Formats: sequence, structure tokens, C-alpha cells
Amino acid sequence: MLAWAKGRQAFLSAFDLNLHPFDEAIALERLADGNFQGHTSARYANMVGPFGGIVAAQMLQAVLLHPARLGDPTVLTINFATGLQDGPFEVSARPARTNRSTQHWQLEIKQNGESALIGTAMTAVRRPTWSDTEHRMPSTIGPQEVARNVPSVPMEWVKRYDMRFIKGALPAVWDGRLEPDSLSQQWMRDDPPRPLDFCALAALADVFFIRLFSRRATRSPVGTVSMTVYFHADAAQLALTGTGFLLGQAVGQQFRDGYFDQSAQLWNEAGDLLATTSQLVYFRD
Amino acid sequence: MLAWAKGRQAFLSAFDLNLHPFDEAIALERLADGNFQGHTSARYANMVGPFGGIVAAQMLQAVLLHPARLGDPTVLTINFATGLQDGPFEVSARPARTNRSTQHWQLEIKQNGESALIGTAMTAVRRPTWSDTEHRMPSTIGPQEVARNVPSVPMEWVKRYDMRFIKGALPAVWDGRLEPDSLSQQWMRDDPPRPLDFCALAALADVFFIRLFSRRATRSPVGTVSMTVYFHADAAQLALTGTGFLLGQAVGQQFRDGYFDQSAQLWNEAGDLLATTSQLVYFRD
Repeated sequence: MLAWAKGRQAFLSAFDLNLHPFDEAIALERLADGNFQGHTSARYANMVGPFGGIVAAQMLQAVLLHPARLGDPTVLTINFATGLQDGPFEVSARPARTNRSTQHWQLEIKQNGESALIGTAMTAVRRPTWSDTEHRMPSTIGPQEVARNVPSVPMEWVKRYDMRFIKGALPAVWDGRLEPDSLSQQWMRDDPPRPLDFCALAALADVFFIRLFSRRATRSPVGTVSMTVYFHADAAQLALTGTGFLLGQAVGQQFRDGYFDQSAQLWNEAGDLLATTSQLVYFRD
Repeated sequence: MLAWAKGRQAFLSAFDLNLHPFDEAIALERLADGNFQGHTSARYANMVGPFGGIVAAQMLQAVLLHPARLGDPTVLTINFATGLQDGPFEVSARPARTNRSTQHWQLEIKQNGESALIGTAMTAVRRPTWSDTEHRMPSTIGPQEVARNVPSVPMEWVKRYDMRFIKGALPAVWDGRLEPDSLSQQWMRDDPPRPLDFCALAALADVFFIRLFSRRATRSPVGTVSMTVYFHADAAQLALTGTGFLLGQAVGQQFRDGYFDQSAQLWNEAGDLLATTSQLVYFRD
């Protein structure tokens, strides 16, 4: 057993052994210099390295655990500069600017002394104002009316989510067929169910499959290079959502010269738009 | 005349005196420590401080001028941590990670020694792949079929753009009326016309007026807190676009507790989707 794994085990054994896999994955240990140590979770493994959503949650967790934090997350951007290798890593969250009710963060994950992810976040103390959901939840069948129907895929992280596709799952046959759009709609939540919080919401923003695969049924190497999440919900709205399902909708806008973007929304069952998110994804032909 | 303004004048006098106001605004001087000095431009002034789009362009320009840069911009995220004051500022662009064909940047603008903006960018060497515009340009009248029709506003930066609204300009009367959506469509380009490049495109991504004002005709304090731009075009496509108009389309998705988001697209007259962009904006009731 590697030294870091031993220390990790001792660290986690201080917790409930029945810790939810998500909580186990985002557990961070504060280091003497104020940074945090985390490590990749085999239960959220992707094809190579970890599921991007869990890394987003780990970066956000460093902000949430920071003793100088002001307010709750409003924006998170993370850029995947290189793939994380299985093992430990160090997260730094630096409050670059603190105002009266907002705070701006510079984020970085280093592994083996080199930068692997960089990002920014903003937290804020929010106050009630005029509010409205302009992008309303599309009317679809409810989560109880559709079975869990994820195609069989080799990625471990997919098992950590109960996904129920209404439209736009992965192609059943990889026959190179071109579809007219990449729109997908899916009910989704953690499996086992876990009360929604900011970190879980950040991870769910990356749960969508690859728009390129919805458009053309051809396997090819892909990887998110940048993801931004706008948190519209506050902690009370997340608590009300609880372990309920979210409806996720995602669509691609432009595919060109090795990159495409995705624009997505996440509503709870009550129709509250909890988060909107976008990402840019690298692909090879 | 302040010391910085004198130095600035000497610096700019080395250039063509007929410099386009945009080029004058994004001119940066490389400092001994590798950072850049820029300063706010009175010609791109907003109600308070500079137009956010010009600051985005200034941050991107620091990346473009960096001697270690690899490739062209694919992603830019900037977080407005506080308002810039009129005067000089220092931009730092640090390549956090350089791979074979991609590079990730940490960005910061400091003024008076304090962080005012932070951000990240990614540049990449791009290669031809399967390409498709899924979010097609809406069919509208062309830029020659609609007059320049921006309502009279006190912001100097608005005069730097030829904007021709098809839908969703600022309210003619601020009577508190609620509109059912915030969708706007506008042809737009620099005034005087200037061949499109990455910096100009970054600025144009912030040219949209405030979604909140399109939804409810009530003046209130607002300010972008974070903007992300995905560059789908390469330099050749920008050169082909030249001084032509872009069609910009923007819509808000969620307004809640002091913040709302905007999702937008910018096509050239040929229908190429050059950039997609999103932002989160603070507002008070």
C-alpha cells in the first residue's frame, strides 16, 4: 500500500465507514500551508483518469472548506489542463479579492508538482430580489415514468448516477449515423440518493454524455477542456430539492476543428432552474 | 497630467496617430517582470469604469502578446472582482501548463496592488475535423435592411459599436413593464469598422445590453461578475469575416436573488458561428 493510501485510509477511518461514495471522493485534508490534499476515487473513474464532475466538486469543496470563505457558490469555472493520474493531488483555493458580499477565488490542482487543473470561483451572500425562470423546464414525463436506461458503458462513474433518459442517450449502435441535433433530456440523481448540495450540483453539471456522440454515432477520443457552472439556487433551495431527481437538458452549438461546446440546464422536479452550465470539449475524428 | 498618462502618451506616440480606438485601448506595454501595463480608455467608458468587453480584450491581448504563447484562443473566462478605476493597471498572463498543442493560462489584472479581475484562458493549435453548426443563425433581415437604432444612452462605449437591433433593444420607456422573454437579436460591428480578430470578438461577446432591462423596464444597478467566451473560429475565419457585421443573439435563463445569467451566440453574415458566450450578472432591485 502506498504511503498516501495509508494516510488516506487513516484519515477516512475517522469518518463513518458508511460514508456515501461522493462524500468519500470529495473529502479533503487541510495541509499545513493552507492547501488541501485530495485523491482520485476509483468509484468515480472515467475511461482514463477521474470523471470531470468529481474533480469539479473536489475543487469547489476546497473553497467551501476554506476558513475565510464568504457566502455560497455563484460561479465555478474549471479548465482541465491535463488528465489527473490515479493518486493524490493538492488543491489550492486562494481568495484573490473579498468585497462586502462577494468573494473571488483562484483555484489550482497540482499533481507531482505540476499544474493539472486551473480555475476560478465566486461566492456571494445573496439577498431576495425579483426572480423568474425564463428558460422553463420542458414538459416531459416524470422520473418515475421512465426506467433507468443507461447503455452499458465501461466507466465506473456512470454507476454512481441514476440516469433516466427521455431523449438523447448514447447511440445503441455505433454505425456512424448523423443525427440532426444533439439535444438530450435526462432525469438524474446520485446513486445511492444523497441530499443535493453545491458540490453534488457541480458534479451533476458534468454528467451529460458527449454531444459529439449524440450527433454522430462514431467513437472517438474526447475530453472536456473547460466547464463553467452558474449556481442559481441557494442552500435552502438545494435542501428542498433533497434527494429528488434533476432534469438535465444539454445541447451542442458548434463543432469545429477539434472542439465543440455544450450548453445545459438543470431543474429540480418542482421546475426550479438550479444551475446553468456550459463546457468546451476537445475531440479527435 | 499624471505621470502614467505622460508615459502612456509617449508610448502611444510611437504608433500611428490614426490608431483605431480599439487598438489604442488594448495597447499594452511589457514590463520588466514580464507583466503588462495597460490603462482604461475614455472612449470605452461605461456608466462607472470601463466597458467589460474592452477589459476582456485587454486581458486576452496579454495572452496574445506573451512570448511563450502556443496557438490561438479557444476559451476565455474573466471574473470581474471589482470595478476598475480610470487609470493604469497591470495585467499578468501566466502559462500554467503547456502541452503539445494546448496551453492553459492564469490571468489577473491588478490596480493599486490589489486584484481587480481574475481569469483563465486556453489557447490551442487546431486541426481540421468534422465540423457543423448545430445552433444555426436565425433567419432575419440583413444588416443593410435595418438602421443603426441604439436608444440614446450616456455610455461612451456604445458609440464604438454600430448596433442594429432586430429585436430586444433597450426599453423605449422605463415604465416597469414585464416582457415575457429577454431575447435580443442585433447586427453589430466596431465603429469605425475594423477587421475582426480574437480581441475584438471577445469584446463583442459583451456588447449585449442587460437581459434584466429587456425583461422588465426598470433601471437598477447591474454589473457582469463573470463572462466566458468559447472561440469556435480560427484566424482565417476571422479574416474572412473582415469588417462585416456579426449577428448577436442573447437570452437570459434564470433571474434569482441578485444574479441572472445570459447565453449568447455570434454569427458572421455567412452564418458561421464564430463564438458562443455566457455570463453571470449581478443586479439590485
